[in-house]
Order: sequence, then structure tokens, then C-alpha cells
Amino acid sequence: VPIITLLTDFGLSDYYVAAMKGVILRRSPMVDIVDISHEISPQNILSAAYVLFGAYDYFPAGTIHVVVVDPGVGSARRPIVVKAGQYYFVGPDNGVFSFVLRQADYQVFEITNRSLFASEISSTFHGRDIFAPIAAALSLGIPLEEIGKHLSRVQLLPEIVQVSPSSLESRIIHIDRFGNCVTGIEQAAFSGSKLPKTFALHAGNSQIRQQKCFYLEEVTEPNNPFVIWGSAGFLEISLPLSSAAERLDLRIGDPVRLLLDASPPNGSERRRTSTNVNR
Amino acid sequence: VPIITLLTDFGLSDYYVAAMKGVILRRSPMVDIVDISHEISPQNILSAAYVLFGAYDYFPAGTIHVVVVDPGVGSARRPIVVKAGQYYFVGPDNGVFSFVLRQADYQVFEITNRSLFASEISSTFHGRDIFAPIAAALSLGIPLEEIGKHLSRVQLLPEIVQVSPSSLESRIIHIDRFGNCVTGIEQAAFSGSKLPKTFALHAGNSQIRQQKCFYLEEVTEPNNPFVIWGSAGFLEISLPLSSAAERLDLRIGDPVRLLLDASPPNGSERRRTSTNVNR
Amino acid sequence: VPIITLLTDFGLSDYYVAAMKGVILRRSPMVDIVDISHEISPQNILSAAYVLFGAYDYFPAGTIHVVVVDPGVGSARRPIVVKAGQYYFVGPDNGVFSFVLRQADYQVFEITNRSLFASEISSTFHGRDIFAPIAAALSLGIPLEEIGKHLSRVQLLPEIVQVSPSSLESRIIHIDRFGNCVTGIEQAAFSGSKLPKTFALHAGNSQIRQQKCFYLEEVTEPNNPFVIWGSAGFLEISLPLSSAAERLDLRIGDPVRLLLDASPPNGSERRRTSTNVNR
Repeated sequence: VPIITLLTDFGLSDYYVAAMKGVILRRSPMVDIVDISHEISPQNILSAAYVLFGAYDYFPAGTIHVVVVDPGVGSARRPIVVKAGQYYFVGPDNGVFSFVLRQADYQVFEITNRSLFASEISSTFHGRDIFAPIAAALSLGIPLEEIGKHLSRVQLLPEIVQVSPSSLESRIIHIDRFGNCVTGIEQAAFSGSKLPKTFALHAGNSQIRQQKCFYLEEVTEPNNPFVIWGSAGFLEISLPLSSAAERLDLRIGDPVRLLLDASPPNGSERRRTSTNVNR
Repeated sequence: VPIITLLTDFGLSDYYVAAMKGVILRRSPMVDIVDISHEISPQNILSAAYVLFGAYDYFPAGTIHVVVVDPGVGSARRPIVVKAGQYYFVGPDNGVFSFVLRQADYQVFEITNRSLFASEISSTFHGRDIFAPIAAALSLGIPLEEIGKHLSRVQLLPEIVQVSPSSLESRIIHIDRFGNCVTGIEQAAFSGSKLPKTFALHAGNSQIRQQKCFYLEEVTEPNNPFVIWGSAGFLEISLPLSSAAERLDLRIGDPVRLLLDASPPNGSERRRTSTNVNR
Repeated sequence: VPIITLLTDFGLSDYYVAAMKGVILRRSPMVDIVDISHEISPQNILSAAYVLFGAYDYFPAGTIHVVVVDPGVGSARRPIVVKAGQYYFVGPDNGVFSFVLRQADYQVFEITNRSLFASEISSTFHGRDIFAPIAAALSLGIPLEEIGKHLSRVQLLPEIVQVSPSSLESRIIHIDRFGNCVTGIEQAAFSGSKLPKTFALHAGNSQIRQQKCFYLEEVTEPNNPFVIWGSAGFLEISLPLSSAAERLDLRIGDPVRLLLDASPPNGSERRRTSTNVNR
């Protein structure tokens, strides 16, 4: 029996996640359920897409990933199942699978077989009444063709990076518990892990010119922010042992701009802390 | 082997929940443990009763629900096991099972068999020393008669709705992660899901006259609060894509009043935002 | 197959914990994973050591406890496995196992067998790339000698209590969800559970002279703080049904001083609330 994972913005103070687990275990008693996260910022589809991307392919082949970040619950948005590479994905067709679908061929099915749903379907909680029963059905080996009808396309989020010859423009797509600010700039776009020495990343009021390999590397100036490739391959803005988000006043959605060949800071600016350099 | 669920106000930053799980797994290694929530507002028995009610009967028959929201730990309040319908409930006799016990016949047993407890019993952590061992014992098939003695009654919370011919008075019993304010008014008290067109719900400084079926239905005025039947059958106060609790300044315990035949708002009031209507 | 527990400061809003679980389940599909906590205050090794101590020995013999509170990830700090009593511990050699290692003989091994690691090792996430694979290997029965090389010593945290003939000096090492302030003073240092009647505990601006056995014992003065032995054997500072941390303005790291034979408060002081007594 495969694993079912859950990724939602339901939080952990309500009955929502537990009701989904009960529904799954009642229909598929041998299945193992693993939480990815339930603390996605409410209705933040992009952040959910990123967190799913960071976790999904560490799981065994055949794992069923259920994602319910679903501001449009009850409206016309379609419930779907996607088979991509070795994994199944269940959730609303709102772009939440955008990152994982870049990595493999995939098939999309609209969930239409109402005989698999809960006997009564609320208009506010499809996680419990549609997505959990469908995940249970998949774990029991019910084929995609019995779950719904084939679709030719799936909703994707707009690109989060604009590339020009000398710079990349993106934004902050997630802030982790340590205050690291994850940008939409990916290592896959570069030939190696080292940025050119002449790089400068602009974010909020800060201009960052230092890159590190690990968080506590050469902590000589603890107030200096640096960039680092995070463990899912996205460029992060960090500070040693403190929250870059708080200290640099950065938020999800803030624009960032990576210059690859920035003119060097002049001497007087260099002596100031890099967080205060004028742009 | 049945499932054991846990519902507490312990939070997730301490060893409390893990110690309970260790105790259970040591005594009943094959059991599957599922968290309902550990983020119940500290000592809030009513909120725990509501969250339990929203989740318990989605689990397979035979599931053992352990609830430890227990401000009176160490005092004279009794530890009990309740068998209600297809489920077992383990916890303090303080009203936390009030909602689920309205739905089925039940038997109550005071937990008295000390040979089933931990070898040393603290006065501060009966979740670990009494309730977890008893849940493990139930999962192993030990009969209720060996766990304790039959009681003729169980503690119930006071009614949370007062009904008069033209109105229902209740209060806010829970606020979910999205800021939806759950009232104690239940759909079961009405013949259908539609409130009369003349209804008005008073809460805090707001008077709400709109009902929706799903959260993003007809979002023409995003600042207008509405009521909606939540997925556990209670009337909620909501705002489209933002927190009603924050925006309307509502808290757990605040009184609400549902008028079924309210006089229509006059024109001048209508033009103002409904959240500012005088009561 | 033994249980693997996880204790980190990763929080629950990211993919970090799930990626570790995926790695473990991919390599050791039958293993049962239990969360101890992921809400350790970021980089707080002492708090993690305390939470581990409160939970570890309730689990079945053979349980593998993985602790990743690891500010030095990527630096020269060593990854280790410790076998202590009936349990295995996996994590960085930074003192996080200090409390559990006082209770049993132990053996320490530096993790060196790179063939057991992930195929690519990041410099920012050894929880996923080293510690999770090693825990999976242990759960599959791979012997310690194949995991690494024997070490003669392990990093321990400095003592958190200084004892003099008439007093004990320590500090607040953890604050729980209820606002109870856990000090580093342990019951094991005393012959019984009752402090001498002449005791006084100084913390922040408070002087506390009352000891209780359970939280709601004799609540005649709800604003009076008291001390109580917590369920892991450490002295806590508490208030009835409210947060001592908030009301007395106490934080992790604040010093506390326990006088065993304090002069009694004079009459005028006694009539004031004990939280305002001058020191």
C-alpha cells in the first residue's frame, strides 16, 4: 500500500486535517499518512507549490500527494488527479502543482466519479469530501480511468523569474522558520553553484554581494546578509543566526533583482553595512 | 488493532505529546496513533469539545479518542472512559465529550484500575501516566469492566444556545485558522440549510444579513461579512479571503444573536458597510 | 523494526521535516516515525536537550532518536551516533544529548560511512542528507561499526546549576505552552519532593515562597505564582490558569536563585502580592 501525504493551509488547531485522515483510514486502513505541512500561509498557492516541490520526490515511488490549498472551494475550479513520473498528485486545479510538473511527463484527470466521494458533499470542505476519498481510492489501486476523465491541460502559475541578459527579476516566494527568504531564482538556471563575483542581489532596501555555502561560514560580520542556495535549489537571503525577513523587513511577494555584473560598491559605501546601501 | 487519536491543549513545542505516544507504543506496539489537534486554546474545554465533534466519526469503528484538555489535573475530577456508538473516549470528566454524547447512547466508566497506570503517577501529567496507558489497554482489548466502575452520569457542558420564538442567542465557541468565527448555532435546529431572508446575525459591532454556500460565492463586496454553515454543521461568521475574527474584532466567548425576522435595514444604513450598523 | 523519532527546530511550515521522513521511508519502508517536536526555539540546543530528556525513555527499547538542532550545519562539527542504554541517538555533536547521557553508559561513534549518505550532500541540510539516511540504516540493523568510528568523548553542555551550601543558582531553560517556566533545578538533587518551608525562589522581579503539587491546588490567590515539580523532574514557576512567563515577564535564559533558608518576609511585604516583593 503506498503512502499518502497531506499538504494544506488548514493549520493544526482545527478538526480539518484529522477529518481527512479519518476518511482515508476508514477507506484504506493499511495506508501510511505523512504530513508535509499544514502551515502554508492561508490561500498561498505559490508557497504550497514550493513546499511540495521541496519534499515530494524524497518519498517512495507510488506515493500519493494530496494538496489542499484551495481558496476556490465550492466554485467552478476543477478537482484533479495528476500522474507525474512515479507520483500521484490530488488537489484543486489552481496551479499548486506547477513546480513538480516541470520535472516529468504527466497525465491529468478531472475527478468526476461521484460514487467515490463522500455520501454528502459540503460546499466548504472538499479536502474531506472529495480529495481524501480519491486519495484512498488511488491507494487501493483504483485506476485513473475510473476516477475521472482525461484533460489535455492543467493550470500552471505564471513564471516567477524574468531573465534579461544582465539580470534576473523575481520575488520572495516563501519565508522559512529561520527567517530565510526564498526567492524564485533557481540554481538550475546557472551552470555551477557559484555566482559571478560581480553579482549583487537587490531586495527591499538591501544590496547583497556575499554568497555562502553554509549558514555559519566565515561569520565575521554577523549583521551582513548573504545569499545561499537553499536545499531545494532556490536562492535564499539569509543572516547568520538571525531572521533575514525580520531584520531586512522582507515579506512574501517582495520583488528581488539579481544583477550578474554589478559595478563594485565605492569605498564609502563599502564601509557602511551593506543593508543600508542606496540602490 | 484499532486507531488511537489524541486531542490536547499541549501544543507541539514540548515533550508532552511525544511522551504519551511513547507510553502507548511501548504497551501496544501495533497501534496507529493519529493527532486530532494539540493546539486547542489552553484549558478551553468547549473548543476541544467542538474540535472532537468535527472529527471523531470520520474514523473507523472502534477508534479510541483520547482527549486531554484538563485544567483540573491532580484535583478530584474523575478520569473516565466513555463508550458511545462505535467509539471509545478517554479523558477527564469535565464536559469535553458533551457534543459527541448527544449523538448516541453511551456508557461511562470511572477509571480506577491502578494496575493499568504508569508505575509512578505524577500529579501534573495524567495524559502520560493514566490516559495513555488506559488507551493502550483498550486497544489491546481489555474490557471496560476491568478498567473501572460504571458511572450513572457524565459531566456535560451547559447548553450554548438559548432559543426564543424569534431569535437564538449563543456565542463564538471557536475561531479557525482562516479567522472564521464558529458560533454555537447548529444547522440541526433548522429544517433546511437556508436561513429566512429576513435573518440578521448580531456579533460584536456587526450586523450580518448575507448567507453564502461557499466562501468565494459572489464576492462583489469583499469587506462584507457573511454567515455560512461550516463543515461540522455550525453557523460561522466569515469574510472573503480575510480573517473575520481580526477584521470584526471578534473573540472566543463573544455573544451572538440570530434574529429570524429582523426589520430590514433602512436605506441610509444600507449604504454604510454592514459592519458598522448600529444595533 | 524499531521506531524512529524526530526532534528539530525546523518548524512545521516548510518541507524540511517531510523531506527527512521521505528519505527514511524510502530506505526503511516498515519503520514507524514519531515526531517529538519540531518547534524547538531556533538553534536552542539546551531547550532541545530538555525536551528530548522528557520524552526519550517512554519509547520502546531500540528506538532511534534523531535530533537536528544544528546551527553549525556544514561546519566542522561532527555528526554522531550514540548508543546509550536501550536507545540510539543520531545528530550533531553539539551537546544536544547532554541530559540523556547522564542516565546510562554510552558509546559514541562519529558518522563517517559516506556510502550510507544521500548521493548528493548539501551544505545546508544534513538532517535530510546524513542524519535521516543513518537513522534508516540503524533501523535496518546496520551495526554501529559500519556507520563510523568510535570516539572517546562527546560534547556536553556546561552545568546549568551551581550549588552552594544555602542556595542553588540556575536559569530558565524552557517555557512550555502554558507559560510554565522550567528551571534547571532538578528534583534528583533533593531527598524528597517537598522543599523546606523556608525556601524562596528569586526569578526576575518575583520572590516565590509557595510550592504546589498540582496546578489547581488551593487556588485562593490566583495572582500568586508558585513552584511545582514538572513531570520531567525540573522545578517550574507557574501561575494558576495563566502564563507565568507573560505575567512575571520571564524569558528563556533568565537567572533563578533558590534559597533554602530564606528569612521570612516581613508583614508589610506579605500583604503585597508576592510578585512585587523587593529583592
